[in-house]
Amino acid sequence: MDTRKLIEVCYTPGEYAYFKDEFEIVVVIDVLRATSAICAAFDNGIASIIPVPTVEEAWEYKQKGFLAGAERKGQIVEGFDFGNSPFSYMKEEFKGQEVVLTTTNGTKSLDVAKDAEIVVVGSFLNLNHLNQWLAKQDKNILCLCSGWQDKFNLEDTICAGAICDHLINTGNFTSVEDSSIAAKYLYLSAKDNYLGFLKSSSHRRRLKNLNLNEDIKYCLTPNQTNVIPILRNGKLVNISEN
Amino acid sequence: MDTRKLIEVCYTPGEYAYFKDEFEIVVVIDVLRATSAICAAFDNGIASIIPVPTVEEAWEYKQKGFLAGAERKGQIVEGFDFGNSPFSYMKEEFKGQEVVLTTTNGTKSLDVAKDAEIVVVGSFLNLNHLNQWLAKQDKNILCLCSGWQDKFNLEDTICAGAICDHLINTGNFTSVEDSSIAAKYLYLSAKDNYLGFLKSSSHRRRLKNLNLNEDIKYCLTPNQTNVIPILRNGKLVNISEN
Repeated sequence: MDTRKLIEVCYTPGEYAYFKDEFEIVVVIDVLRATSAICAAFDNGIASIIPVPTVEEAWEYKQKGFLAGAERKGQIVEGFDFGNSPFSYMKEEFKGQEVVLTTTNGTKSLDVAKDAEIVVVGSFLNLNHLNQWLAKQDKNILCLCSGWQDKFNLEDTICAGAICDHLINTGNFTSVEDSSIAAKYLYLSAKDNYLGFLKSSSHRRRLKNLNLNEDIKYCLTPNQTNVIPILRNGKLVNISEN
Repeated sequence: MDTRKLIEVCYTPGEYAYFKDEFEIVVVIDVLRATSAICAAFDNGIASIIPVPTVEEAWEYKQKGFLAGAERKGQIVEGFDFGNSPFSYMKEEFKGQEVVLTTTNGTKSLDVAKDAEIVVVGSFLNLNHLNQWLAKQDKNILCLCSGWQDKFNLEDTICAGAICDHLINTGNFTSVEDSSIAAKYLYLSAKDNYLGFLKSSSHRRRLKNLNLNEDIKYCLTPNQTNVIPILRNGKLVNISEN
């Protein structure tokens, strides 16, 4: 009998319903830029993040005195203090704080996945440490890519493919879905040069037009932090011990 | 100004709604096996095929005296004469006939796309001739993969990637969606050995377990026919002149 656990990839939040029942762990991925920003925020000492799906909910929190961020179409929503640039969390004033965040795609995925047993945040920034942590859990794992407005995107898929590749190589995990097999292929083609591979990707072009090249480079640079952000009672907290 | 037309890839019928408005031509692809069987049927002289989404509709036609086929979960539905094996259409009795067909994924995609200006059937079997025909149309083209039960599949994606690669190389078409870029990458990785590349694909395993290896080999062998089946008033007919 095959006792290996599953590691699979779902390309968009809209397809999550076709996958969800088999998986105890959901890794939410939005490389450009929500889950990268969340990892950067915890790396910089934030206490917790309340992800909310709508701008209205984020605004309600802001009215109550919370630090609140909102991004739509790659830009900070008017009236909010920050969006989803990782650099916006690298300020002294954020240390130890609880903040609220809504983004176009990433917080939507977190909302879609919220009833899973464990919801964890993945990005290139925490890739190695996340892989090591996932490998120890002995549970079926689904990588949920956030995509772009309900469509497939390359950068999330390649990050998910990197997780598949690592876990399959431990010998304790297997993939049976074609989406996971393709994600792994795309990762193996991209891994030596993420920036080059993704130069034609649609979201990279979109952000480049908004002068966000520094954000892109940062978000595509693996292993800058050991944080493991997980969702607990509606809040993201960092459970990493190192 | 960029005057090139679009060639894009949608991975599943469920995502078609996010794409459809920009495209005058939809190429419906279900390599294993509906659109391969449809190409084989026209190559063998069938007059027309009425695709229907449900078994109930196919049964109604059968009661009226039509030749009717139905496939679900890779097998012929009880009471019907044939399913979606390409070999089932290679019989003398089909020549000049009109038949009715419902399949798990392929006829569903045809139904989803039916309001597009032009709906054409693609597979590896008619790949070169279809590419040449598409290149002459000067219209925006969407490849609609049928997937497997609303999920991504590799074989349809690779066939779509082959169409993207050909049309982009003419210089008159471009892709902007990440799904199209990934499909092209996957095609370029697979093109020298479709059978080998797809050996781990989920649907190939599924069909192999049903002893359908001959079907798989046939469906993955490019350029066996010049047929161009298009949807006209709810029926598929072959508009190829050679």
